[in-house]
This record gives sequence, structure tokens and C-alpha cells, in this order.
Amino acid sequence: MNYVGIDIGGTNIKAGLVDDSGAVRDARRMPSVVDDIDILLKSLTTIVADFQSRASIEAVGVGIPGLRSTRTHLIETSPNIPCIRNLNLEAELAKQLKLPVISENDANAGAYGEWVAGAGRGLQYMAYLTIGTGLGCGLVLSGALYRGASGYAGEIGHLNVEPDGRPCACGSIGCFETRVSAPGLIATARELGLNESSADAVYDAAIHGDTAALAAFADTGRFLGIACANLINLLNLESIVIGGGVMASADLLLHSATAEVRRRAFEPAARICPIVQSQLRSDAGLIGAAMLARDRQ
Amino acid sequence: MNYVGIDIGGTNIKAGLVDDSGAVRDARRMPSVVDDIDILLKSLTTIVADFQSRASIEAVGVGIPGLRSTRTHLIETSPNIPCIRNLNLEAELAKQLKLPVISENDANAGAYGEWVAGAGRGLQYMAYLTIGTGLGCGLVLSGALYRGASGYAGEIGHLNVEPDGRPCACGSIGCFETRVSAPGLIATARELGLNESSADAVYDAAIHGDTAALAAFADTGRFLGIACANLINLLNLESIVIGGGVMASADLLLHSATAEVRRRAFEPAARICPIVQSQLRSDAGLIGAAMLARDRQ
Repeated sequence: MNYVGIDIGGTNIKAGLVDDSGAVRDARRMPSVVDDIDILLKSLTTIVADFQSRASIEAVGVGIPGLRSTRTHLIETSPNIPCIRNLNLEAELAKQLKLPVISENDANAGAYGEWVAGAGRGLQYMAYLTIGTGLGCGLVLSGALYRGASGYAGEIGHLNVEPDGRPCACGSIGCFETRVSAPGLIATARELGLNESSADAVYDAAIHGDTAALAAFADTGRFLGIACANLINLLNLESIVIGGGVMASADLLLHSATAEVRRRAFEPAARICPIVQSQLRSDAGLIGAAMLARDRQ
Repeated sequence: MNYVGIDIGGTNIKAGLVDDSGAVRDARRMPSVVDDIDILLKSLTTIVADFQSRASIEAVGVGIPGLRSTRTHLIETSPNIPCIRNLNLEAELAKQLKLPVISENDANAGAYGEWVAGAGRGLQYMAYLTIGTGLGCGLVLSGALYRGASGYAGEIGHLNVEPDGRPCACGSIGCFETRVSAPGLIATARELGLNESSADAVYDAAIHGDTAALAAFADTGRFLGIACANLINLLNLESIVIGGGVMASADLLLHSATAEVRRRAFEPAARICPIVQSQLRSDAGLIGAAMLARDRQ
């Protein structure tokens, strides 16, 4: 059987034809549509029809950046894709496609992907963190994707770590996301005197030995480590899997993150919880969405 | 049927004869035993024998302050009761009592008590916080007590909120417990110029209008609110139930805690998660331990 997994981001839409085992047999990428729901739906149905022309499709899974209510199935907030707000996206697509469709928060979909087909295979307790424009997180607890009372769980990016810290896009102050994200890294680099406007540029400076860039990565890694220690002390996990665009520079982050975990987390809990890189990389979300469609989760 | 629930604290041991519904039919309190395992075991078996002389006992549950491994059933750490470290307390007691015995972290037992017989009845997702010498926490997630991979879950007291804050007894720096606990409240009051050595004395000063004492409670409540907002954003709960000795002064804490939650948590998640006081008060741990024995959880 085959499934279509779609990962709607603020910049791009990634879609894949995924088989039962989670292997991507074919993939597409296109610019995202953020403010016109008709054009967005048309893009999505066109992708699925394209895959249908080469394989029989059993179901479709869609990962979306935002909070999806498990009670109403509506997308309650989606700052980066405003046109899907208050929409039952899965019902709308199912009607047009005449196929079963599920939708899920994109970080939750990524967690599910790593769990069934990536770095979390066989575990009962894991977190998946994705560091990019923001800091996303999905949780697998007691052997199931953990969504919480209404589908909003997993927002480690908006746990507080500095009560009087940097303003966060969510309206609070001092959330982890203000430190552990591409904009957070860039802000830290600027505070340290390096005037770059992309995470890639900070990375380039760091690998060429720039002291401020290296310090910015060490500081970002330190906050990533505090976030991991918090997850370990609260949830007693078996692994934390880290992905997202900024993890291209994983080597620069993981050293200080791991040192910080050793400093902060309970030793018996930290000992059993390795912090590892994503195996599915940028495909985690679309593979997870396809696997959620497979399992009708 | 009747059960014995025992809550071993650093200062006192509380024990109760508890019926099927979680009602306490008889209770005992005695000074704790921290450094002699034989005397501690003798005290516990004497309590149970005493209750057995007036009712038939089906099983015994014991709440302990420390980390109990669900893998080995050993108590891995217990700073306040060093004599139970590396002990399989439940097996030892079962052998002597010839009754089924379960043991559990005391805050987990309290959470279970509030869930089956207190403020959390009927919920699927809740946290129980207990503010006293430390800041304990137990979680009920997806309709079951959440223990994590090896039984250590729920340590909200040791989530980080100030990376360069106060030293914590756990070895880290800036844990919530350094702010939200009796010692944390006293330390905050001292920083504000009030020289008291107990939480009760700070409370007395506050209700008599002392500005520093009131500010110390407001600050403690603020950090309690940040802890609650973190739990809401990560776990999407239906209620947070707060107990423990310091909650005698709940009115002074909950106002600023609730204001802080409104400031920090996602609105759709915070809206469905009231923050309420414990119903079982100081009996939460022993009732929960008895109910865990009833359910052989």
C-alpha cells in the first residue's frame, strides 16, 4: 500500500509518495501558499492526483504548522499559514480527494515519523525536537503519540527559561524558542558582535573559526541542553531526537547541549536517554504524516 | 475491602486505614526514621499490625520521597531518608507482612490520590504539585499515572527556570524548587529584607500587611505560575491540582500564579486547564498510596 505525506511549511510544501515501511518512493517540493485557501487546496489536490497517476493511494496525511484541536478537528492557530486558521483541513481535502485524510501538527508528525521509521524505532518514550524558524517538539509517551487533552501538547519551544529574557513571538518572554532557533542563534551572534542575518552565515563563520560565531553556537547548545534536561527530568525519556534545519550544524550544538544535560538532569534518568540526530532529516514530517495516515492515528 | 496507605516523609510518617472509595477510616502519625532501616521497617509493620487488629487489610501502599525504579523496584535516591536507598522496600515489607505491598514516589502517590478520590476525579490529563520542603509533582496522562521509562518522571521541581539562578540541592542551578518551596519562599523574603526562618512566619507577616512578605509570596506565585504555564504548554492538561504545606497560604500564591499563566501559556490550552487547590490536603499521599495498593498499580 502507498500513502501520500505532505508537510506544509511557511516557505515550502514538501510531499512524498510513501510506502508501508515509511520509505519515500517519490517526492515533490513547491513554494508554500499562506493566504489563499483555494489556491492551497488546489495545490494539495494536484500533488495527490499526480502521485495517484503512478500508484494506488490508500490515504493522505498532512502536517501543518499550528495547533490542531483533537476535539473539533479545526486548526486553531497557524501564524505562518493564516489561511488554514479555523479550517477543518482534513475534511475539506477528504471531500475533494475522496480519500481518507488526517492532519496533525508538523512537529508531532515528525515525532511519529522518527518513531515508526527513524531514530526512535522500538522506543516507548521519546521526544523529537526540530530547530528551524522556531523550536518544535513532538512527544511519544507510553508507546503512543502524545497529544494532550485537546491536541496542543509538545510546545517545548514555549516553555520558559528566562522569565525576563527576550520577547517571544507567542507573546510571552524568555521562551526556549527565543534562544534555540535560527532567529535565536542570529540574535545571540549579534549580541556577541557578529552581524550576520542567517543561521547559515553564522555557521560558515563558526567553521572558519570566528570566536563570536563559535560562542553563539555554544550558547544556543547550552539552552538546547537545558531544554533536554527539562524533558528528561519531567518525562523520563529513552531518547531525544533532534532535527530541523539548524541541526545541519549539529556538531557545533550537541557538544555543549550534552555537557549541559550532564550538569542539570538527574543522573539515573539522563544515563538512559541519549540525545541523537534525526535519521529522516527534512523528510521526518512528511514520512510521519504518511505513517499517521497509514495507521489512521 | 480496606487498605493501608503510608506516606513516609522526612519529618513524619503518616498512615491511614483507607476503604475502597478512598475514605480514611483511621489515621496515625509518628516521627520519621531516616537512618536505621530496621527501626523504620519495624515502625511500618507495627502500624500495619495495629490497623489489622481492627479491620481486614487487603494490601499496603507506601509513598516514599525519592526516585523508585520501575525496572528494578529499588529506591535509587532518597536524600531525606537515606536508609531506604538501594532497597526493594515493597519486597521487604511484603515478606514481613505477608500482604501485597506496592511503593511509589510520594508526589506520584499524591497525584494518584487526587485523581481517583480528590480534585482530579474523572480527568484524563492532570498534574499534582506539592509545595513544601521541596516542589514535588505527579502526572496523570492519557488516563493513567505517568511514570516514564523507569519511574522517575514528574520532577517539575527540577526543571530549569533561571540558568544562572540559585544553587539547588539536586546539584543544578536555578531549578523551580529554589523558588517555589518553603526554603525558596524564605530565601526570597530574606532578599527582600524580611528575616524570618519559616514559611509560617513569612505567612504571618504577610497577613499582617508586611510589604516584603507580600512581595515574597507574589514572587513565589509568579514562579509557580511559570511552572504551571510550562506544564500547560508541554502537556496540554485539564487541571493542575496544588497541595503541600505551603498551600495553606494558597490565596497569597494563586492570584499571581494565575496572572502569570495568562501571560505565558497558549490561550486555547490555558482556557481548559483550571489551577485548583488539593482536596485531600495532607492526606493526598497516603490515600493515593492506598489506592495504588487497591489497584495494584
